Amino acid sequence: MSSNYQNFRKSVPWLIIFLEAVFIILFAIFFSCCVAQESEIFYPVFQDVNHMVIFGFGFFLMFLKRYGFSSVGFNLLIFVLGVQCSMLIDSILFYILELKIQECLNSITESAMSMTAVLISTGAVLGKMNPVQLILMTVVEITAFCISRFINKIILKVTDSISMMHVHPFGAYFGLAASLAFSEPSPRSEKNASTPTSNLFSMLGTLFLWVFWPSFNSVLAESNKNTAFYNTYFALAVSAVTAFLLSSLTTKDGKFRMSHIHSAALAGGIAVGYTAQSIEYPWIAMILGLLASVITILGSCCLQRCLNPALKLHDTSGVHFTFGLPAVLGVLAQVVLFVI
Amino acid sequence: MSSNYQNFRKSVPWLIIFLEAVFIILFAIFFSCCVAQESEIFYPVFQDVNHMVIFGFGFFLMFLKRYGFSSVGFNLLIFVLGVQCSMLIDSILFYILELKIQECLNSITESAMSMTAVLISTGAVLGKMNPVQLILMTVVEITAFCISRFINKIILKVTDSISMMHVHPFGAYFGLAASLAFSEPSPRSEKNASTPTSNLFSMLGTLFLWVFWPSFNSVLAESNKNTAFYNTYFALAVSAVTAFLLSSLTTKDGKFRMSHIHSAALAGGIAVGYTAQSIEYPWIAMILGLLASVITILGSCCLQRCLNPALKLHDTSGVHFTFGLPAVLGVLAQVVLFVI
Amino acid sequence: MSSNYQNFRKSVPWLIIFLEAVFIILFAIFFSCCVAQESEIFYPVFQDVNHMVIFGFGFFLMFLKRYGFSSVGFNLLIFVLGVQCSMLIDSILFYILELKIQECLNSITESAMSMTAVLISTGAVLGKMNPVQLILMTVVEITAFCISRFINKIILKVTDSISMMHVHPFGAYFGLAASLAFSEPSPRSEKNASTPTSNLFSMLGTLFLWVFWPSFNSVLAESNKNTAFYNTYFALAVSAVTAFLLSSLTTKDGKFRMSHIHSAALAGGIAVGYTAQSIEYPWIAMILGLLASVITILGSCCLQRCLNPALKLHDTSGVHFTFGLPAVLGVLAQVVLFVI
Repeated sequence: MSSNYQNFRKSVPWLIIFLEAVFIILFAIFFSCCVAQESEIFYPVFQDVNHMVIFGFGFFLMFLKRYGFSSVGFNLLIFVLGVQCSMLIDSILFYILELKIQECLNSITESAMSMTAVLISTGAVLGKMNPVQLILMTVVEITAFCISRFINKIILKVTDSISMMHVHPFGAYFGLAASLAFSEPSPRSEKNASTPTSNLFSMLGTLFLWVFWPSFNSVLAESNKNTAFYNTYFALAVSAVTAFLLSSLTTKDGKFRMSHIHSAALAGGIAVGYTAQSIEYPWIAMILGLLASVITILGSCCLQRCLNPALKLHDTSGVHFTFGLPAVLGVLAQVVLFVI
Repeated sequence: MSSNYQNFRKSVPWLIIFLEAVFIILFAIFFSCCVAQESEIFYPVFQDVNHMVIFGFGFFLMFLKRYGFSSVGFNLLIFVLGVQCSMLIDSILFYILELKIQECLNSITESAMSMTAVLISTGAVLGKMNPVQLILMTVVEITAFCISRFINKIILKVTDSISMMHVHPFGAYFGLAASLAFSEPSPRSEKNASTPTSNLFSMLGTLFLWVFWPSFNSVLAESNKNTAFYNTYFALAVSAVTAFLLSSLTTKDGKFRMSHIHSAALAGGIAVGYTAQSIEYPWIAMILGLLASVITILGSCCLQRCLNPALKLHDTSGVHFTFGLPAVLGVLAQVVLFVI
Repeated sequence: MSSNYQNFRKSVPWLIIFLEAVFIILFAIFFSCCVAQESEIFYPVFQDVNHMVIFGFGFFLMFLKRYGFSSVGFNLLIFVLGVQCSMLIDSILFYILELKIQECLNSITESAMSMTAVLISTGAVLGKMNPVQLILMTVVEITAFCISRFINKIILKVTDSISMMHVHPFGAYFGLAASLAFSEPSPRSEKNASTPTSNLFSMLGTLFLWVFWPSFNSVLAESNKNTAFYNTYFALAVSAVTAFLLSSLTTKDGKFRMSHIHSAALAGGIAVGYTAQSIEYPWIAMILGLLASVITILGSCCLQRCLNPALKLHDTSGVHFTFGLPAVLGVLAQVVLFVI
């Protein structure tokens, strides 16, 4: 086992060299993006998204004491590998299908947002996968996601801003599926421990995600960027309130528990993603935020007690209820709104 | 006492449920903001303000070891409750007085800035109020502040950017008044202790406030946004220098003390708030920054030794000299400039 | 020695008072910048640069346990003193040479970027200089850099965006020269120790620099701001990947070492600085990022073992290989591109 681990360790650099060499060569052959064309993406909003993905997810997953640096470091490594991979796949698909070349800032933004799927999946297998497996998962998952986004765009004629919202369920369920392959670490092991400082860093990550989520939901909107922004803002506000409320209701001593806030404060932003552009009244977004937060906290109680032991799942940072369930709610809301 | 505390704890979720239900219902009835109208607020500057209020104040008050998570968590809870409350009061007042509907981003920005008053007050009662009291204080204070801002606007014809600067003195003196109701914790108790890590997080908060203060002072300016920005920048620069200088002078061993930097580095930004748009020469702003910083450090020495024990005040994070005194100086500067 | 140190300590406030008084007087006499003129600098990009310099460098140098607050605090003190000094020197030079007055935001941005040189130098003498020496070094270095930038602009007709990129080699070699005057602290002393938390803060600094580097490289570009941005983004992505790769290759157990990532992830951004506007294909920027990262890691191994002991250099945070060598590579790349 240990020598196996040593071998794995030694193959990390060769895998990275191989990938990076392939990327540079393919970039030289296929990559083309239109610089001259004016971008639809507003530069500061792009920076918000970039800022959010690197800081937010990097610190969001830092609650385990032993994964402080690993979490921030691997997050950066996976992000930069995945962004290159995603831009390349987009370029190749555009090249093969002889489509109009994309604008460059657009392409970078879409790649950075697609990487959210992989970073969410990482949360489910945190502390269980070794670096080689993480890198391979990144390449496989981002390829699958890019192709799914392409099918959405070309065949199903779904707009970019909607198809991009699939990152949350895609990431969560891909991560859960991947985590099935690993055994659960012993609950008493030091690997599951967290310290106050690591928890604070993790809260810092949550705040980064919370502050920049409206930019994330509105950056790709074709029209109604403002509406998307306002609805996300209101949904996030209500889901943060609900997170505190339910946290205080479900704990015995009535204290707020950080892990609840951690996961449920963001639920509103995820749930409203699909419908942010089309909701007309803020109170609808607010109710959606409330429901998303309720589902997340109930999910966190029920899933961890009932479903996970039954399926032998071990979802380290609870991506199922943090990202998966609110996204499912978002899809339902989209369907309901569409019918009405 | 303890059972009393238990009862308080248990009423937290019901209070939040009640408030949030009222908010959603009133939002559905009264809330209306104009989405179509083009905003005067520049989106990235709004994000700066949002970023500053959530990160800056969240971490600014984190210097007490035992209030690490509470400080960041409550800050978020109070902020989201207060923003909703403030937007609602504005909407209702606009509705009653049959005024022209406000633009939406404008409304969110003003609400987020108004919340600064509550977050400042929180600093004065940190570690003394329980969550129920904090939430009630938030609702009362934000209502009072919104109405005062409305009186300023409609009756006194003060511009928005000036009336918004009242957040600092309003927040500081409201907090002081509230803290009168609580007894001072024993000075040796663990509640007053701070650790190097909590101090560093608190410094991080100061930096967030420092970096984004020019955006805060210039976001609502009707004209001369640039002048407001430059004057704030210069005043902040000089007050940061003066903070180091006086810290080194007033300590026995000549070392810089973090708590001085913490409070005095921001004094310039607060003092220049009222006059930022009208000061013509940067050196005036610089001298204002210098004076503000001097007043803060002198205040921190004198008030804590003389005034506070006499009045039996206990101002946990020193909001009186950090926010109150520089704002008073700012008002004086405004009067002097007006006379000249 | 100790009484000497005490005397030094006591002279800190008087030195700061003297400097600040001179600054305010000279500002009142000489400072003039055009507020009416429309700025070429985009405000959010300026905020990115400001954000990056204060947070990035403040936390980047925080890896030593004993310099947590000193690092963030001194960074702020040096930054505010230096920015004022730099704006003043620019104003005086413009006044003497009777040039057209600069736009104000432009002037602040250039001053903030120039300060990068001083903050880099600080890294080389971290923990060795006392505050008086640091402040004097700041004034001397920023004066020298401003004059060098002026010579570049007026006599050599180099554009602002290129001459600004000299901050990296200037800062690194100035710092190295300054560090020659100090003896190396004993390697076992507590001064060289770092803790996991201080390392995490330092990683936070690296991430701030990494995220905002594209803004830094593109803010002053006369044309092709987008190209400068894209090339920097790609170069940074590849150099982050290479940093992980080489870190894993050069350590015995194949683990990533934080100090490698710390220095090499940024190498690409520095190396591509000179040529960011003129590189046509992203793969060229990617290869430059790769080479920069390789040079940094090789430099970190070789220089610390061979060159530094021979020259009796002690470069606390390795600014020679972090900022010096990639910048030299950037100059070479510029020459090669110019020849082709």
